[in-house]
Amino acid sequence: MQYELFYWPGIQGRGEFVRLALEDAGAVYRDVAREAGGESALMALLDDKSLVRPPFAPPFLKAGEMLIGQTANILHFLGPRLGLAPEAEADRLWLHQLQLTVADVVAETHDSHHPVSVSEYYEDQREEAMRRSADFTASRIPKYLRYFENVLARNPSGMEWVIGSTASYVDLSLFQLLEGLHYAFPNAMARLAPALPHLESLRRRVAKRPRIAAYLKSERRLPFNEQGIFRRYPELDAT
Amino acid sequence: MQYELFYWPGIQGRGEFVRLALEDAGAVYRDVAREAGGESALMALLDDKSLVRPPFAPPFLKAGEMLIGQTANILHFLGPRLGLAPEAEADRLWLHQLQLTVADVVAETHDSHHPVSVSEYYEDQREEAMRRSADFTASRIPKYLRYFENVLARNPSGMEWVIGSTASYVDLSLFQLLEGLHYAFPNAMARLAPALPHLESLRRRVAKRPRIAAYLKSERRLPFNEQGIFRRYPELDAT
Repeated sequence: MQYELFYWPGIQGRGEFVRLALEDAGAVYRDVAREAGGESALMALLDDKSLVRPPFAPPFLKAGEMLIGQTANILHFLGPRLGLAPEAEADRLWLHQLQLTVADVVAETHDSHHPVSVSEYYEDQREEAMRRSADFTASRIPKYLRYFENVLARNPSGMEWVIGSTASYVDLSLFQLLEGLHYAFPNAMARLAPALPHLESLRRRVAKRPRIAAYLKSERRLPFNEQGIFRRYPELDAT
Repeated sequence: MQYELFYWPGIQGRGEFVRLALEDAGAVYRDVAREAGGESALMALLDDKSLVRPPFAPPFLKAGEMLIGQTANILHFLGPRLGLAPEAEADRLWLHQLQLTVADVVAETHDSHHPVSVSEYYEDQREEAMRRSADFTASRIPKYLRYFENVLARNPSGMEWVIGSTASYVDLSLFQLLEGLHYAFPNAMARLAPALPHLESLRRRVAKRPRIAAYLKSERRLPFNEQGIFRRYPELDAT
């Protein structure tokens, strides 16, 4: 199956969680909006009134006749097909539960720089962002990451991956979450990292996976930037 | 199967989306934290270091040996078992995609009164909440609800339910979302409702389902209040 991923072309954003799974599995896929004319194709799909099951927002994935939206839902679908999730229902639900918790951190990360309105500029909500980021870095990031650290520590098959003894799409997403948080909040993360040995080890382990390492060096990997979810605004990251 | 639901006892909150599905299906379930000593049982489970697959936060559902967290994940699991979702994978993914979009609105609703910090009082972030709620009622609620209105309008089996010609758990969740938004933002919703005929009709239709009607009149249905997700603060709802 050739997959077609639709996501905004200039940022990693939520699409990156899907890209990492496709890349790690060596799947054949088109990153449609990054091809010539592709952003128009994405917009046309969003506006297509003949779609019986329209997506609300990117990313969405075309897989044969199916058009699947919501990042975690896409990964739930792809997981077993890419060899990045077990087949058993209980295992799949557990991975999905973790992925939805990753999605919660991602949404809170976005709101750390846009606490008032997604449609207004950062500069017009900077003061609110400073208040929110202070709480996010002091309370929320530690709470979430300590949770994931515990999940790794409690995996009966070893502490390398969240489930079993091989990588799942959730491990790839945790890598991306950590990369993003380290990019956006280097000071806060430097303070926190020593308490997260399993997560930091997972982060290095994922980066070394051959297909991920090749992807990260390629032009397909967009750099983090200040239009995406993980943004580096020094005033939001107290020293 | 007797299900055990764990959720904070004093609010509808995210637990209510699960309750409505269990109630509509006439399922046998315990609402554990609302029983005597139940809140301690909930806290004990959250703190239980022997749990190999710990939940991050309520609600979570005990079903036999499984402990399932994340509202949308619980409903994804329950849907076909309660007769509130088709069995086919494509249909289940579509419903789940919609439910995750409901979850996104719910999270934004929470942030409309807590834009800065979940751990600080509303009164200490009221000004930020007023800015955020202005955007939420003017832009975000209309965008989400028009999307769901379109989903109903495009259902090839009729415009009564989001999928096929019978109610799914997503329809019950849309009922709850509408009830909550009407409670929290009566002015904004009064302006918007005329443009949402299918959704408003679905809302009335769900309320009349015999088991839902009985539930809504029972003591099991907690009233909306200002500790939950949908809060009525007049200053956040411009006339």
